[in-house]
Amino acid sequence: MTPNPLWKTIAETLAAEIARGLYAPRAKLPTEAQLARRFGVNRHTVRRALADLAQQGLVHARRGAGVFVQSTPTEYPLGRRVRFHQAVTASGRTPDRRRLRLETRPASAPEAAALDLETGAPVVVYGGVSLSDGQPLALFESVFPAERLPGLAAALEEDSSVTRALASCGVDDYLRAETRLSAHLADAVQARHLQLRPGAPLLRSIALNTDLGGQPVERGVTWFAGERVSLVVAPGTQ
Amino acid sequence: MTPNPLWKTIAETLAAEIARGLYAPRAKLPTEAQLARRFGVNRHTVRRALADLAQQGLVHARRGAGVFVQSTPTEYPLGRRVRFHQAVTASGRTPDRRRLRLETRPASAPEAAALDLETGAPVVVYGGVSLSDGQPLALFESVFPAERLPGLAAALEEDSSVTRALASCGVDDYLRAETRLSAHLADAVQARHLQLRPGAPLLRSIALNTDLGGQPVERGVTWFAGERVSLVVAPGTQ
Repeated sequence: MTPNPLWKTIAETLAAEIARGLYAPRAKLPTEAQLARRFGVNRHTVRRALADLAQQGLVHARRGAGVFVQSTPTEYPLGRRVRFHQAVTASGRTPDRRRLRLETRPASAPEAAALDLETGAPVVVYGGVSLSDGQPLALFESVFPAERLPGLAAALEEDSSVTRALASCGVDDYLRAETRLSAHLADAVQARHLQLRPGAPLLRSIALNTDLGGQPVERGVTWFAGERVSLVVAPGTQ
Repeated sequence: MTPNPLWKTIAETLAAEIARGLYAPRAKLPTEAQLARRFGVNRHTVRRALADLAQQGLVHARRGAGVFVQSTPTEYPLGRRVRFHQAVTASGRTPDRRRLRLETRPASAPEAAALDLETGAPVVVYGGVSLSDGQPLALFESVFPAERLPGLAAALEEDSSVTRALASCGVDDYLRAETRLSAHLADAVQARHLQLRPGAPLLRSIALNTDLGGQPVERGVTWFAGERVSLVVAPGTQ
């Protein structure tokens, strides 16, 4: 019988302690140095054990801050108004956004159909990663009708908030008209952005937002890290 | 350079024809015999090509009926009332249900919390597969408060419809109070029931239905074949 390697035993020990609640969701694990002393091994072995736990989705490393026990899924209400920043804050976590792309190009056929434009009309494409407590939650790509919202691209250049950028274009409020949900596997690029393994499950949302007059202002495709969120549809409460 | 095996060339040819719309979604492919004649091969080679297309999710075999091009995703509205049979019929397809389990047992803690019961109170567990045009769409497991709904298990034994079984217990109408959505990978058993590969993406829904008085009548966990459905949330229209 081949005995377990040291790193594997350490990973199993920590996984069991996490499962028993000795380290709660979102708790910071001891440092590498502390774990090395506890288990009587060098830091390389500790790092290997932690990498294994991260691979399993039990912990995640936050650059410069340490290693944290995976949080319970972030609740994300899909109501009349869907606001990422608000949803994350309401669940007691810290939201952040990292921009990946901002460009203006012609609308594709599905985009034109959704936004009530001619195919080929210019649209602003804004793509990025949404984070909760420093961990990627979703990859998003939103498309806006450029001619209907002059100055939007410039506003998004300055400020990552879609809500504020739309407000600066005169759209003071916007509503979620429709959301379509399905599930897919992360490809290599998506996995990299979301800090997941290729083939990890993604919850995909295709959404349409309109202004108060019912005119489309945004068509958004979002790929949520499927096990890190709980999208909540609760008609009575929204 | 090693040339493509015959079966692979055949699979690629058919995939291209499907992509170009020569065989539309839901269309029946020619029989094995017809394809064997067309490509000048034996039926074993045709079967291998078709198996590869099924593996890719481009076609699916319906026992006794033939091989069909994968349909566009089935739209499944999540409104005030969520009714599987109606949703599938409305999308022009034929619904069906296959029962996997029907038993009475004590409620777990999350079940008791959702149904407003004491932990350990008896619940009826009804599990099965939901199909659309003969293809599995979802694996479901619903839990009902047994003492509040006497006769429910017997009704479900006779008739697979939850709506009719609840009606026979005096629950003439029920509403969707809440739906929580996430994404996961199919394990080997789920994959088998859903005719998917292990590791295929599943959209998981945890739902609570209540009667018109607001009392919980059903807590349902459903795993949808993630790429075969489009769950639609559209507040204005439901």
